[in-house]
Amino acid sequence: MDKLIIIKVGGNIIDDEQKLSSFLTSFASVEGKKILVHGGGKLATKMAAQLGVEQQMIDGRRITDAETLKIVTMVYAGYINKNIVAQLQARGCNAIGLCGADGNVIQSHKRVHPTIDYGFVGDVDSINTSLLKSLLDQDVNVVMAPITHNKEGLLLNTNADTIAQEIAQAMSGLYSVQLIYSFEKSGVLLNAEDDSTVIPGINPESYKELKEKNVIFAGMIPKLDNAFTALKKGVSKVVIGKAEELQALITGKAGTTIQE
Amino acid sequence: MDKLIIIKVGGNIIDDEQKLSSFLTSFASVEGKKILVHGGGKLATKMAAQLGVEQQMIDGRRITDAETLKIVTMVYAGYINKNIVAQLQARGCNAIGLCGADGNVIQSHKRVHPTIDYGFVGDVDSINTSLLKSLLDQDVNVVMAPITHNKEGLLLNTNADTIAQEIAQAMSGLYSVQLIYSFEKSGVLLNAEDDSTVIPGINPESYKELKEKNVIFAGMIPKLDNAFTALKKGVSKVVIGKAEELQALITGKAGTTIQE
Repeated sequence: MDKLIIIKVGGNIIDDEQKLSSFLTSFASVEGKKILVHGGGKLATKMAAQLGVEQQMIDGRRITDAETLKIVTMVYAGYINKNIVAQLQARGCNAIGLCGADGNVIQSHKRVHPTIDYGFVGDVDSINTSLLKSLLDQDVNVVMAPITHNKEGLLLNTNADTIAQEIAQAMSGLYSVQLIYSFEKSGVLLNAEDDSTVIPGINPESYKELKEKNVIFAGMIPKLDNAFTALKKGVSKVVIGKAEELQALITGKAGTTIQE
Repeated sequence: MDKLIIIKVGGNIIDDEQKLSSFLTSFASVEGKKILVHGGGKLATKMAAQLGVEQQMIDGRRITDAETLKIVTMVYAGYINKNIVAQLQARGCNAIGLCGADGNVIQSHKRVHPTIDYGFVGDVDSINTSLLKSLLDQDVNVVMAPITHNKEGLLLNTNADTIAQEIAQAMSGLYSVQLIYSFEKSGVLLNAEDDSTVIPGINPESYKELKEKNVIFAGMIPKLDNAFTALKKGVSKVVIGKAEELQALITGKAGTTIQE
């Protein structure tokens, strides 16, 4: 099977022109088929403030009212997505920017929750792997904005980490998939304050141990749980690490590699 | 050759939720391969006002400074484009929304003008017909936002009429192309104030005559000149008419048909 690398890039890179530019140079030079999934929360928050739209957050998740949905659609699927694509084209990396509605790439449903109304937030139902494969097979790399749709005309705001995971799982039948979560830290850390305490590798046994010893930063637990789910669903390898070290993350020379 | 219908829809439809919805129902039911090109000037103007960005116009063309480019990228390629795609998906019409940077579909250069600096405005250089053909051949209809790129990392604002014309011309080698400009009037009118005075057909001879008699509204002259250029470059038929009559425009039962 061909290799496919799916890379989620975090907000701290998107928000910083210099860091984004250098990350995209690095992404463009990654060989083979690849999909980039981006968020961009801070730019949306800034735009909301400029437009006087108040933002509500619950458990680090944005409550997406109608005005906020409009803003994230503009900022994620418009401004950020198209600027990333244009910059990749300038680096000789042919790319196409999509949201989940495009070609019905990611269908979702509006989140149902017993107590919290998250608003226009979508939980993923299905991925159109054949369109993604057709684009990748034409050497067109895909840049995904974290907006999905319910196929009934509604756009929905969807967590970018989840989108990366769902695409990785769905594409595993067609490619040998490596999933990379790049963010501001060097990987999963033993000491959240000390970037030199990266755990190079985690497997189910060591994960159990680390959790029992209570040494993993609470915020990392859902990411790791998702990583193990992805592995169970056919993804070959998940790496968590610093966006600035993308090439080293891919080769396993940096970051935390999660494997079964 | 397969037929391809390229439809430009004007701002008055985009700005009106009800009209847009009914137009999209009509578009979704058009048989065969199709490309929709949209503008959306008024929504961008409204967003600029909300953000306190002053808009400059020269000869009906927006001067696109850096802030305005950001706004049109968000509004055209984000908000409008993705909402159109989601609504088409809801109507069972598989569609993908692109700007010119996506898959390098439309490459342009920043306009050079001896006296006016239009800012970030792009004049079209080339169309990537093979990606468009590959999508259409997978029964994915294309929705184009009027944003292009210079392949050096710059997004550029480009007139939607021009984009429709350039795509129509470029695709003429691969399909029998019909180009439809849909707007608020019923067609080319003998009396600009009277929608019942549609000229059903114009050819080069009658066009010469109409111009000599000075009966065509000045604003229509560039549209008609462009239509004749498109015909010379291989487009089979150009129709100008009311968006609400889309099906009738396609069959030639409404609007003005321009043919050689």
